[in-house]
Amino acid sequence: MKKIKVALCQMVVSENKEKNLFTAHKMINEAADKGAKLVVLPEMFNCPYDNSVFSDFAEAYPGGTTVDYLSKIAKEREIYLVGGSIPEIDGLGSIYNTSYIFNTYGDIIASHRKVHLFDIDVKGKIVFKESDVLSSGDDITVFETEYGKMAAAICYDIRFPEIIRLMALKGAKIIIIPAAFNMTTGPAHWDLLFKARALDNQVFVLGCSPARNNQASYIAYGNSIITGPWGDVIGKLDEKEGILIKELDLESLDLIREQLPLLKHRRKDIYKLLGE
Amino acid sequence: MKKIKVALCQMVVSENKEKNLFTAHKMINEAADKGAKLVVLPEMFNCPYDNSVFSDFAEAYPGGTTVDYLSKIAKEREIYLVGGSIPEIDGLGSIYNTSYIFNTYGDIIASHRKVHLFDIDVKGKIVFKESDVLSSGDDITVFETEYGKMAAAICYDIRFPEIIRLMALKGAKIIIIPAAFNMTTGPAHWDLLFKARALDNQVFVLGCSPARNNQASYIAYGNSIITGPWGDVIGKLDEKEGILIKELDLESLDLIREQLPLLKHRRKDIYKLLGE
Repeated sequence: MKKIKVALCQMVVSENKEKNLFTAHKMINEAADKGAKLVVLPEMFNCPYDNSVFSDFAEAYPGGTTVDYLSKIAKEREIYLVGGSIPEIDGLGSIYNTSYIFNTYGDIIASHRKVHLFDIDVKGKIVFKESDVLSSGDDITVFETEYGKMAAAICYDIRFPEIIRLMALKGAKIIIIPAAFNMTTGPAHWDLLFKARALDNQVFVLGCSPARNNQASYIAYGNSIITGPWGDVIGKLDEKEGILIKELDLESLDLIREQLPLLKHRRKDIYKLLGE
Repeated sequence: MKKIKVALCQMVVSENKEKNLFTAHKMINEAADKGAKLVVLPEMFNCPYDNSVFSDFAEAYPGGTTVDYLSKIAKEREIYLVGGSIPEIDGLGSIYNTSYIFNTYGDIIASHRKVHLFDIDVKGKIVFKESDVLSSGDDITVFETEYGKMAAAICYDIRFPEIIRLMALKGAKIIIIPAAFNMTTGPAHWDLLFKARALDNQVFVLGCSPARNNQASYIAYGNSIITGPWGDVIGKLDEKEGILIKELDLESLDLIREQLPLLKHRRKDIYKLLGE
């Protein structure tokens, strides 16, 4: 299938998990009603983005409320669902920032643990150190769908061109990135990163942020975005709660790769990624 | 030394080599008069960017007019000079798109043969096939200066994140790219690529284009640009002939790398470039 309608649910994330699940459910339903076949939630959509609460909100897999909840919705609405991310706790007590991905039958077809932890200290502007509380994943997450291969990463992962390049080389044409940039890095880098990764790899890149909540300890930038293989912005929200729905044309992607054959022109005799 | 004044000479390139050398000389002198210590010329600055004339304009090394001419100017003005690029012919008759780089004594300290040849066919907009006439280089070009390491690449090379990443990993903090984008790829991708490479690698990137010449068979975009390690545009020209002069602060670069340690956060256990 050469076209797919996708939806990014830019929801307000509150301090109440049940309320967050309810909001997600409502927005997913609205997206599905409008014909979306791939629906995406934001990073940490069931939990404030705050080191001090990740362990309280963390769920084990299997058996967690959120995963069961999302699985049912995906099945009921017959959609691919990228469940943003949630704090996951493993048997050893390590906590991960994890995205679970469901197919149209509600089965988990992939999960991604954030690979690059967000440790930043821009003087007087933004300090955050995920690694104080979270552990990192080790996998590049690519999965098969009836629309072809897709991939998922989380937020800070997008800053590392190698991981996105490897996803494209493994065949992913749609790369999905739940992400909560902040009011310093968002205005400076959000559009730029999504446009550049799409252009360099000639793929669609979907960035789904929480809506901006000025009461939160960490204020998300919002501006959920879809960029295309020509480096263009296909759609973008502002900072408020809302759903971005667009149809992606995978044939246009093939055409651009034919006209400007960047992936073919790579000089693998000079540089090469281990693992490609 | 932590600060360096750089100049990009966005010159009109004509069909007359002597005239082009004269224009370059005049602009380099003006840049040096204004205190520039690193001066950059555009891609194919001595020759129209046109497959049909590259062999007529090509020069052998050593012994070519252009290299001797630039060497004298660099020595006389005691500047680092990145001589844009010119068609170079080797002993076997192969022609390369080559940049010669001179130190303040007029010695060649590096040369870069364009690694990625520009073969593009955007229907109804732009067709160009460098590989019909040119051969490609095989090296990643990094060189030492009294201001630290710098690197050079040419035009289409910038589209490949791996080569720029390797330059940064080899220690280059200023990456110089003589480049002639066109009226299709320029408006769509020029700023984006220069900003993204600077941001991802936390380096300065200098893009020096010929001025736009609507009489030429290949119309260059102009818009010579300097981007910085925060992904910002430090300076930019319009399409007309002119010199862009800016002072680069290498300490600001170190500060950004400390606050947002992207290069340190790379997951070399998951991906790694051969040769890094």
